Amino acid sequence: MKSIVEGVLKFQQDAFPGLSGLFKQLATTQNPSALFITCSDSRVVPELLTQQDPGDIFVIRNAGNIVPSYSSEPGGVTATVEYAVAVLGVTDIVVCGHSDCGAMTAISTCKCLDHLPAVAGWLRHADAAKAVNASRNHISPAARLSSMVRENVIAQLANIKTHPSVALALEQGRLSLHGWVYDIESGAIVALDGVSNTFVSLAEFPETVATQAKRSALAA
Amino acid sequence: MKSIVEGVLKFQQDAFPGLSGLFKQLATTQNPSALFITCSDSRVVPELLTQQDPGDIFVIRNAGNIVPSYSSEPGGVTATVEYAVAVLGVTDIVVCGHSDCGAMTAISTCKCLDHLPAVAGWLRHADAAKAVNASRNHISPAARLSSMVRENVIAQLANIKTHPSVALALEQGRLSLHGWVYDIESGAIVALDGVSNTFVSLAEFPETVATQAKRSALAA
Amino acid sequence: MKSIVEGVLKFQQDAFPGLSGLFKQLATTQNPSALFITCSDSRVVPELLTQQDPGDIFVIRNAGNIVPSYSSEPGGVTATVEYAVAVLGVTDIVVCGHSDCGAMTAISTCKCLDHLPAVAGWLRHADAAKAVNASRNHISPAARLSSMVRENVIAQLANIKTHPSVALALEQGRLSLHGWVYDIESGAIVALDGVSNTFVSLAEFPETVATQAKRSALAA
Amino acid sequence: MKSIVEGVLKFQQDAFPGLSGLFKQLATTQNPSALFITCSDSRVVPELLTQQDPGDIFVIRNAGNIVPSYSSEPGGVTATVEYAVAVLGVTDIVVCGHSDCGAMTAISTCKCLDHLPAVAGWLRHADAAKAVNASRNHISPAARLSSMVRENVIAQLANIKTHPSVALALEQGRLSLHGWVYDIESGAIVALDGVSNTFVSLAEFPETVATQAKRSALAA
Repeated sequence: MKSIVEGVLKFQQDAFPGLSGLFKQLATTQNPSALFITCSDSRVVPELLTQQDPGDIFVIRNAGNIVPSYSSEPGGVTATVEYAVAVLGVTDIVVCGHSDCGAMTAISTCKCLDHLPAVAGWLRHADAAKAVNASRNHISPAARLSSMVRENVIAQLANIKTHPSVALALEQGRLSLHGWVYDIESGAIVALDGVSNTFVSLAEFPETVATQAKRSALAA
Repeated sequence: MKSIVEGVLKFQQDAFPGLSGLFKQLATTQNPSALFITCSDSRVVPELLTQQDPGDIFVIRNAGNIVPSYSSEPGGVTATVEYAVAVLGVTDIVVCGHSDCGAMTAISTCKCLDHLPAVAGWLRHADAAKAVNASRNHISPAARLSSMVRENVIAQLANIKTHPSVALALEQGRLSLHGWVYDIESGAIVALDGVSNTFVSLAEFPETVATQAKRSALAA
Repeated sequence: MKSIVEGVLKFQQDAFPGLSGLFKQLATTQNPSALFITCSDSRVVPELLTQQDPGDIFVIRNAGNIVPSYSSEPGGVTATVEYAVAVLGVTDIVVCGHSDCGAMTAISTCKCLDHLPAVAGWLRHADAAKAVNASRNHISPAARLSSMVRENVIAQLANIKTHPSVALALEQGRLSLHGWVYDIESGAIVALDGVSNTFVSLAEFPETVATQAKRSALAA
Repeated sequence: MKSIVEGVLKFQQDAFPGLSGLFKQLATTQNPSALFITCSDSRVVPELLTQQDPGDIFVIRNAGNIVPSYSSEPGGVTATVEYAVAVLGVTDIVVCGHSDCGAMTAISTCKCLDHLPAVAGWLRHADAAKAVNASRNHISPAARLSSMVRENVIAQLANIKTHPSVALALEQGRLSLHGWVYDIESGAIVALDGVSNTFVSLAEFPETVATQAKRSALAA
């Protein structure tokens, strides 16, 4: 904890002065353009890997970058998605998985989670991805994990489409969904291409989108 | 979205090279010392304000930095807390609220949330703070909001103590809880002092702790 | 009730003899090719309107032909979908709405449902459709209801895709999803065309499909 | 799917013309006298076995003809029962099990359902019947299954009495409950006699009722 508190003091002395103008502007308002949903993993720092400033992205972080599908008993992710889309009006949502994910490893290796009942329950929101991934042949455990991470991103995008605020924004052509996977070791990102249903390099195809607004809405 | 994708390219070209040694070490392991729970708000960047590197802090972010109390139907926050404490073995948990919080403003001003049913449901996990705050006289709406933000941090610390993994770790003397409030405009942080039950400046009292491990455990 | 019991006796005396061979075959096995999900409404008789015999279609009926999205607390519809897809191996699922639907009328007219708490809770699974439909201009209440019925079919198809058994079967190219709306007065059926995202006459376009198996799977 | 779509065309050409007068009357209203709750099983066609016309019976169908008891988290069956009783005012509810039921076979043979988590969860609503049936000696697996099917009907009738709308209608003397078991091979139906608590032939005792309205209410 000592390094964290020392970090705060360092932030206040060294980093804050250069940002004080920005923070003054932001003191009573925020206007982020995107909702970025990623893992709680300490190695995935969304503002770092997208080089965004304070005020730029609204962030949800939980174990496994999971978005439960909409239900009559909504929890924190659903509430936060609703706030981001219906109140803040973000135009893009990124669901970003990553390499070496502990949650996806637990699923991919059928780890016994009896001693972690809350984790086990939470990971059931990835059951669709688990079923798809288990149906395939993988050449190695590493390939199985890598595929699981990608399928999980696809499944969470399916889940998020059941949210009313998201369905409405897609219908009205004011929201796009993005599915990313970040590789910790190399810093590379692949993005889901909704047309081919495959992941491609974001650096090579920077305009890749998982789900566009509806055609009818776009035409309107 | 364009600036975010451009940010990724900038990260890969400019920032990653200097961090590649660290990321290589982190490729297959993480060992964060703390769980940092804060708001999805775009202006609150935990790694920036604590000056921590990738790999240092495990992060939960949702609207209102809320931790539901433990129940038979655990959701994502509970699962992520369980993972952080029981698997990663973090030694500190920080619940960090902030000034100008949209969620706390909604509660503090009794805003009608009929059009945001998921948000309304989620904020019920702050009902204890709402009741306490509503029972007091406040000299202004700003004072009411400021007090609400602080009471919410206190209420979420009460909630997190109902989690089995947290209760066990506190009992065994291997976990401390911290309650912070971050002021966006000034960069200042106040911390809950568990002895006096008041918030004090973290810069002046850097060792302030909200809840220590049990004395018996510490003595052991 | 008298007419129902008399109907049973009539069935046993008049209808059963001609079907006894079929029922003998079916005594210990069923092999339906499709799961047909429709409303509890007394006017929508799935076996009549598809002219199917006993043994041909597996049927779910509830108020509003609703399929909750997958969650960690699955109910009866989810369990029955799982059984149909994973055990019986149906190759097609039809979600069939209908004209003059009481549930959709309640949503479309913003009827107060305070006295029907279970109905109100259940209809939240149509919130995505409600949000989309409310965002549009409709030339009349009848047009609003008609559109609501169609949007509800679309939303329930989005919901069913979050079910693991369905995601897997789509991935493996052994399941197609169909979205129908049945008009009670005329007997006509329109079907959702997944390509144009519009409803077309089933009589004119009998091969219309809402969601095909994945391209990759089909190619395999 | 081809035969189903062909069936629709056949319905529209052959069957609909003779029913067009009835369907015209039904276009904007329904007035069913009974709620019929039965299994999704493809061999159990309620309108066929009771020889009822469109408009006559309101139907719930799910795996195992299950009615969860009332809870604070009502699902689709509860909502549909509420709608049938409180809005449509049906005077009779039939819970109809059947021979060779896959759901009851799974319970009766203690089948492992680990690969069908939603089914396993759903069948817990038959735990009372399972416990009663397991406490008895049965002369054969067939006898155990047959008994399980009957006990399940009894348990679901107990469950439905916990619903507020049903409890109120029984209290006011405007609703009767019926428990049936349908034999696929023979077409025979046995009905639960609430006085002797045994199942008797519906053909011989056509006025058999499982639960009558309360005496006081009937006298009123």
